[in-house]
Amino acid sequence: MSKSVKDYVRSISDFPEEGVLFRDITPVIQDPQGFRLALEGMQELIGDTQFDVIVAAESRGFLFGAPLADRYGKGVTLLRKKGKLPWKTVSQSYELEYGSAEVEMHEDAILPGQKVLIVDDLIATGGTVEAAVKLVEKLGGEVVMAVFLMELTDLKGRERLKGCEVKSVIKYEGK
Amino acid sequence: MSKSVKDYVRSISDFPEEGVLFRDITPVIQDPQGFRLALEGMQELIGDTQFDVIVAAESRGFLFGAPLADRYGKGVTLLRKKGKLPWKTVSQSYELEYGSAEVEMHEDAILPGQKVLIVDDLIATGGTVEAAVKLVEKLGGEVVMAVFLMELTDLKGRERLKGCEVKSVIKYEGK
Repeated sequence: MSKSVKDYVRSISDFPEEGVLFRDITPVIQDPQGFRLALEGMQELIGDTQFDVIVAAESRGFLFGAPLADRYGKGVTLLRKKGKLPWKTVSQSYELEYGSAEVEMHEDAILPGQKVLIVDDLIATGGTVEAAVKLVEKLGGEVVMAVFLMELTDLKGRERLKGCEVKSVIKYEGK
Repeated sequence: MSKSVKDYVRSISDFPEEGVLFRDITPVIQDPQGFRLALEGMQELIGDTQFDVIVAAESRGFLFGAPLADRYGKGVTLLRKKGKLPWKTVSQSYELEYGSAEVEMHEDAILPGQKVLIVDDLIATGGTVEAAVKLVEKLGGEVVMAVFLMELTDLKGRERLKGCEVKSVIKYEGK
C-alpha cells in the first residue's frame, strides 16, 4: 500500500512540555516522497480557489508556504513574531494558555483588495492564524482560505476562524 | 530593461541596530517575478552539482531551501536555533561579535554518505553556515555547496568556509 503523510510524522512525548504529544514534521519534509505528498495534499485542498499571495506563518509555515507559492507562480509574504521584521509593521496580539504573544506583518505585505491564502504547518488552538486574519484584513486584504498540513482537532482552532475556510491535510485528536 | 533580484531588495538603515544597513528580502519573495528570479538565480549557481538533500537554515533559509528542494525533487532538512527541534539533536556553537550562539540539527537529519546542499538567504560573517558544515560532517554527510541569495562581501564569510564551494546570487559591500 502506498504511504500517506501520516506515515512520515514522528510523534514525540513531552515536547515542548510534559503531557504534550508533539507531532514532528521534519521526517515528512526530509523525505522526497513525504514532502511531495504534503505539498500535493495541500494543493488538493486549495483546489481551484483563486488567490493573489500566500501568507506564510513563522517559521515552519515557511517550509510549505514558499514552495506552494512557487508551484502557483505567486509571491509569499511573512507573518512573523514581534521584532523580526525590519520595516514598518502592523501587529496583533493574541491570547495563549498563559499570557499572550504578538505577531507582525509589514505594512506593504498585502495590497488592498488582494486575495490571500494563509499557510502554516499546524492549526492547534488557532491563535496565530486568527491574528493573521486580523492583520490581513487590517491591510485591506481578504483571506480566501487557511490551509494547514496538520490539525489538532480537540483544540478546536477552526472555531476561532468563523467566516474563513479552514482546511488541513491530516488530523489528530488529543493535544 | 528587465529587472534583477537587486531591484527588489529594500535597504533599511539602522536595523537591527544602529549603523547596520539591513538588506530586506521580503519585497523579493513577495513579488512573483522577484521570487522566481531569486530561485532561478540560485538554481543557476547550483548548475549540475549533484546532491541528496538540502539543509535549510532557520528561518529565512526555509523560504529558499524548501522551494529549491521541491524543484529538484529532494527533501529539506533543518538547521535550527537551540531548543527548537523536538527530537534528539547534535549541536554546534559559534562565535558572534559579542558572545556566542548555538544551532542544532536532528541526529537523523543527514544519513551517512549523503551529499548536502546548504541554503540560506544570507552569508554575512559565515558563523551560521560554518556551524552547519560542522554538523553535517558530524552526521557523516558531505557538503557539496553552500548557496545564498545575498552575500555581504566585506564580512568575508566565505573565508571561514575553506574547502566548501560558496556561491551567492547578489553581493553587497559594507555591513
